[in-house]
Amino acid sequence: MKRSAFCVIIAGGKGTRFWPLSRSQRPKQLLKILSSKSLIRETADRVFALSGPKQTLVVTVADQLKGLAKELRMLPRANFLAEPEGKNTAPCIGLAALEVVARDPKGIMLVLPADHWVADVSAFRRALNSAVELASASDNLITIGIRPDYPETGYGYIMKGKPVGANNLGGAYQVKQFKEKPSEKMACQLIRRGSLWNSGIFIWRASTLLELMRRYQPAVADALSQISQAARGKSLAKPNPGLKRLIAREYQKMPNISIDHAVLEKAGSEGKVLTLEANFGWSDIGSWAAVHRMMHRDHDGNAGNGKWLGLGAKNCLIHAQDRLVVLLGVQDAVVVDTPDALLVGDLKRSQEVRELVEELRQKGYGPYTVK
Amino acid sequence: MKRSAFCVIIAGGKGTRFWPLSRSQRPKQLLKILSSKSLIRETADRVFALSGPKQTLVVTVADQLKGLAKELRMLPRANFLAEPEGKNTAPCIGLAALEVVARDPKGIMLVLPADHWVADVSAFRRALNSAVELASASDNLITIGIRPDYPETGYGYIMKGKPVGANNLGGAYQVKQFKEKPSEKMACQLIRRGSLWNSGIFIWRASTLLELMRRYQPAVADALSQISQAARGKSLAKPNPGLKRLIAREYQKMPNISIDHAVLEKAGSEGKVLTLEANFGWSDIGSWAAVHRMMHRDHDGNAGNGKWLGLGAKNCLIHAQDRLVVLLGVQDAVVVDTPDALLVGDLKRSQEVRELVEELRQKGYGPYTVK
Repeated sequence: MKRSAFCVIIAGGKGTRFWPLSRSQRPKQLLKILSSKSLIRETADRVFALSGPKQTLVVTVADQLKGLAKELRMLPRANFLAEPEGKNTAPCIGLAALEVVARDPKGIMLVLPADHWVADVSAFRRALNSAVELASASDNLITIGIRPDYPETGYGYIMKGKPVGANNLGGAYQVKQFKEKPSEKMACQLIRRGSLWNSGIFIWRASTLLELMRRYQPAVADALSQISQAARGKSLAKPNPGLKRLIAREYQKMPNISIDHAVLEKAGSEGKVLTLEANFGWSDIGSWAAVHRMMHRDHDGNAGNGKWLGLGAKNCLIHAQDRLVVLLGVQDAVVVDTPDALLVGDLKRSQEVRELVEELRQKGYGPYTVK
Repeated sequence: MKRSAFCVIIAGGKGTRFWPLSRSQRPKQLLKILSSKSLIRETADRVFALSGPKQTLVVTVADQLKGLAKELRMLPRANFLAEPEGKNTAPCIGLAALEVVARDPKGIMLVLPADHWVADVSAFRRALNSAVELASASDNLITIGIRPDYPETGYGYIMKGKPVGANNLGGAYQVKQFKEKPSEKMACQLIRRGSLWNSGIFIWRASTLLELMRRYQPAVADALSQISQAARGKSLAKPNPGLKRLIAREYQKMPNISIDHAVLEKAGSEGKVLTLEANFGWSDIGSWAAVHRMMHRDHDGNAGNGKWLGLGAKNCLIHAQDRLVVLLGVQDAVVVDTPDALLVGDLKRSQEVRELVEELRQKGYGPYTVK
């Protein structure tokens, strides 16, 4: 990969969707859901080969910094950027863009969520290399589009426009429109018309992103400018106390907004966004149901970790730890056993775990949502 | 109640139906399923008022003796009889009959399972007093028949014959026939025809039972005679080592047979069994589903102990201990949480817990079935 490429791992998730395994101090990216490695460690291992540890940055929120630095010891401490508070992806990616520009004014950044799953790492790397080529050759924003496996209603979709030149991994296309979380019927229609899942993996020149931010989101851009001027070309990792206070102040001013709403949708409607179609086996692991879909299942459709036994149980996901978990005649259930809390849920309703955590807090069970 | 009446609490259950709460060393009768008292303690409290502690006997198997004596400290240690091994109810009740006859040759015994539930204790006591009157006045065997609430397929039914004289609690009838565990369709028919649930609560003169045992079950009667002769009129509680060995030897010879098959069905066909119809709110608490039926349920039909929270959960039974149990969108489930094992089951299949425990043993999880 080009010397100017920086991998930016976005790791600010609050970790409520995998309760009771995830807690606010043990968020999703630190969980060992699919293997003996944490999700962020899997992500880092996939990514190091692309840009090398020196040009791999991690952006997280202040209270997760310590845990992540411990998990990713191979990464220089100076490569961790801490947001004072989570404000969705636009401020987070903007902050990372400042850091990339400070290190290389022409730097290209690959934005990679910390908690995704990829089946074919070689195909993943080939796709990202192609995307970096594409971003270097133009001032476009590139998003990796995934060929859908099924009509998922929890993802965003990319409606493809004209192709923009042959590519040996599939093809690059203009983005015609983004569609957020469609109904199942709409998702089927989108798939029939060749639309792609929006992976949340983005590739662009950092300076291009900052220019477009200025154009579409002046409030975010102003705050970023203040931070940049105060830093005077120095790294934003390990800021001195004065700079740290200034960053906190500017963050308070910024709106809570996703990069999709803030920049991509607007840039897309002006023809500035391309999608590179890829097929490396991908999931954002958005729920226990998604985990169940990715795991090896037995002939009854059950999948699990730890000591468990199913008798007449079908299509269940079991996450056991120290204790024996026995299922008798239950179907489509998710059972997650932790030392202080147990979840027994309908796997088809696992999207509701996030609301469940909110309800736990309201009902006085807040201590069970932190660790 | 008459001076000659002895309450005999039968407490030899192995305790597999309430796994993982019940274990072979912590059987059903010692569980606190429905209140803060164990089931046997509830039974003893119901029964002491009838015959007094001195004339309340407990029959159990040797390896449960210590635990039961500890639970029922108010009972003289000399009132606990230990079977060397469980051989179903006929040998157990026969052994108790020997003890009653040794204490009072004309003694009447009330046979009471240790692990049943009774709603109205006053009505229960009135019914048993009437039954003792009835047994004193004749040489019949009396079984308490319960007016059914619903077509339970796990119970035995009593088809009533002719009434045998008025009784202020309902009535006494000849028993026409016993029907074991009918299909649901058959249970509905039985209920329409006025049949009763066979409660397993029996009242008879001990000497009558032993006579009928001799007639219908010579193998059991012979073994009991050997034991009786060796005891020479002394109590069978705390036997000396020689007597203990003899009891063990005679038990090995006895068939494994229920009192229903051994005596009641045969005596019934000869017109020697009466049933006293009663309606004091009764259950044999045969499964987690039965427990759910008896507990106080919230407006979603959920019932539970301990810290638990249901979100969109319906008709569930939760037995939590130290940890928080959260149910999301599940229906008709039983969740039983213990320090080393967890059961998540379909409440409608809770009759299968017994087979499940067998399967656990076969699959190498035997240590999880003992305590």
